[in-house]
Amino acid sequence: MSSKEHRLVALLTQELGRATDAVTLGIGDDAAVLQVPRGERLVVSVDAAVEGTHFRLPWLSPLQLGARSFEAALSDLAAMGARPLGAVCGLVLPSAVSARFVQQLARGQAAVAARQGCPVLGGNLARGPEVSLTTTVFGSARRVLTRQGARPGDELWLVGQVGLAALGLRLLQAERRPTSRAARVAIDAWRRPAALLGEGRALLGRASASIDVSDGLVSDALQLARASELRLELEAARLLEGLSPTLMSQGVQPALDLALHGGEDYALLATGPAQRRPAFARRIGRAVQGSGVVLVSPDGRRAPLRSRQYLHFTG
Amino acid sequence: MSSKEHRLVALLTQELGRATDAVTLGIGDDAAVLQVPRGERLVVSVDAAVEGTHFRLPWLSPLQLGARSFEAALSDLAAMGARPLGAVCGLVLPSAVSARFVQQLARGQAAVAARQGCPVLGGNLARGPEVSLTTTVFGSARRVLTRQGARPGDELWLVGQVGLAALGLRLLQAERRPTSRAARVAIDAWRRPAALLGEGRALLGRASASIDVSDGLVSDALQLARASELRLELEAARLLEGLSPTLMSQGVQPALDLALHGGEDYALLATGPAQRRPAFARRIGRAVQGSGVVLVSPDGRRAPLRSRQYLHFTG
Repeated sequence: MSSKEHRLVALLTQELGRATDAVTLGIGDDAAVLQVPRGERLVVSVDAAVEGTHFRLPWLSPLQLGARSFEAALSDLAAMGARPLGAVCGLVLPSAVSARFVQQLARGQAAVAARQGCPVLGGNLARGPEVSLTTTVFGSARRVLTRQGARPGDELWLVGQVGLAALGLRLLQAERRPTSRAARVAIDAWRRPAALLGEGRALLGRASASIDVSDGLVSDALQLARASELRLELEAARLLEGLSPTLMSQGVQPALDLALHGGEDYALLATGPAQRRPAFARRIGRAVQGSGVVLVSPDGRRAPLRSRQYLHFTG
Repeated sequence: MSSKEHRLVALLTQELGRATDAVTLGIGDDAAVLQVPRGERLVVSVDAAVEGTHFRLPWLSPLQLGARSFEAALSDLAAMGARPLGAVCGLVLPSAVSARFVQQLARGQAAVAARQGCPVLGGNLARGPEVSLTTTVFGSARRVLTRQGARPGDELWLVGQVGLAALGLRLLQAERRPTSRAARVAIDAWRRPAALLGEGRALLGRASASIDVSDGLVSDALQLARASELRLELEAARLLEGLSPTLMSQGVQPALDLALHGGEDYALLATGPAQRRPAFARRIGRAVQGSGVVLVSPDGRRAPLRSRQYLHFTG
């Protein structure tokens, strides 16, 4: 490491070291050491946020970037019903980056660490042409929720919002200054997602399968349908009913499109029997025999849905 | 994900899925799930290999790149004396990359997974301007070796080679075709490091502290000295004695320089009492009261050593 890298590592350690009380050995040795609760299994996931692919620097502050990339990674633990244990982050930074940028990035991560109870245990710093954060999150659970396990007859549940973040991303891509309250709400939804960890844990023992909605409702529903070997029916009326007023202010068809195909809200999609539906989950359809995902119109027409990712920056 | 990304993920799953027998839930769900052996703690580390910073594509085949980045990450587990459980990889690839490149990269990882007993449990694929691999490895251990714990009076032990990889890197940077056997041996040392996992585990209960030599012998010795709050004396004669003939063929002073300051061999540096030194460890000095790292010449002169990283591509 160069002396600048040494200084940045010291800075990161200072910002993130505070959160590591529960951990046997944190940042600063060859590896971090922690205890997995007795009788629980380890749950691991990795997610990356790459400048130019997932975000552009003018779109969010370094504080928001640090927090957002961490929440996105944690969303996979939420979908599994796991409790977070800790995270490590591989950080790639251009050499021109300022110490303040790195500090703010770390503060964003530290805020999530505190809020979600997931200390940052270590990391790696490397030079590269663009900013990127590769976050690996560790959790534990006695048993987990997977994409398999949905049964015909199950209800289809949505936890959290869909479509709003994609609207916010569109506004950022169009480089329009947010003048309306609606625009600010949507941009905020994209900038500041929160992994639904509590909800994910509460789905354990209630849901039969779950997935987090990162790519888009249809795209992720297709994955769940494939893994569970059945068909998911999305009921347009039920889905529209639950959409945020901000999204609905775009008009019904654009709102529905954004809800179906927009990603990065980090909602949870789950299936389960009616009598087990938790209060925080909204019923948006059901699981039936067959394959794929269909949209059921209020008049009962069924149209197959395909993954469409034109709303994604990554698309 | 675009359809190309879906195809690449399918390819990665095919190449890497084979190694995941021991795992509850591998590639293909939101997260991987596995069991940490009872009574053992989780040991986690992350390492990145970024094109243009850590390597250039002409310097090694995609198979070697996949293997090398994985071994480098595993070296941190070796230093802790941990047994590997699994790994996840955040892969960033330019959109122009071929399916064959990705397949070879994954085959390199799969070879290490099999050789070192560390299945690849999942990953993340993202587009970016350069190739990068961020590998998070996790292992387990009842207790671990850290950088702290060296005591004055301990011997200083080296396990594995130092200097040879840096010589290989120099040759690659100079873009000279390796004509001599010596050049081929050195380049091979850089291209194909192997994490000393067995040796690391064998050091448990024998060594008082350890670190892997990734930045360079002096640089990493300084870290160990700082963490253990003592001085390490490197004996030039003992160090030279153990250097490979290939390195010594460069002349004594260049060989010593490369051994002291060259990195990326992924040797292990440890301290421990004389009577506990394992057969595979070479004594290269000792720990005394004080601070820093000094070189002891055959005539008994002591010269303080500072971290010098001009031999590093990352420098």
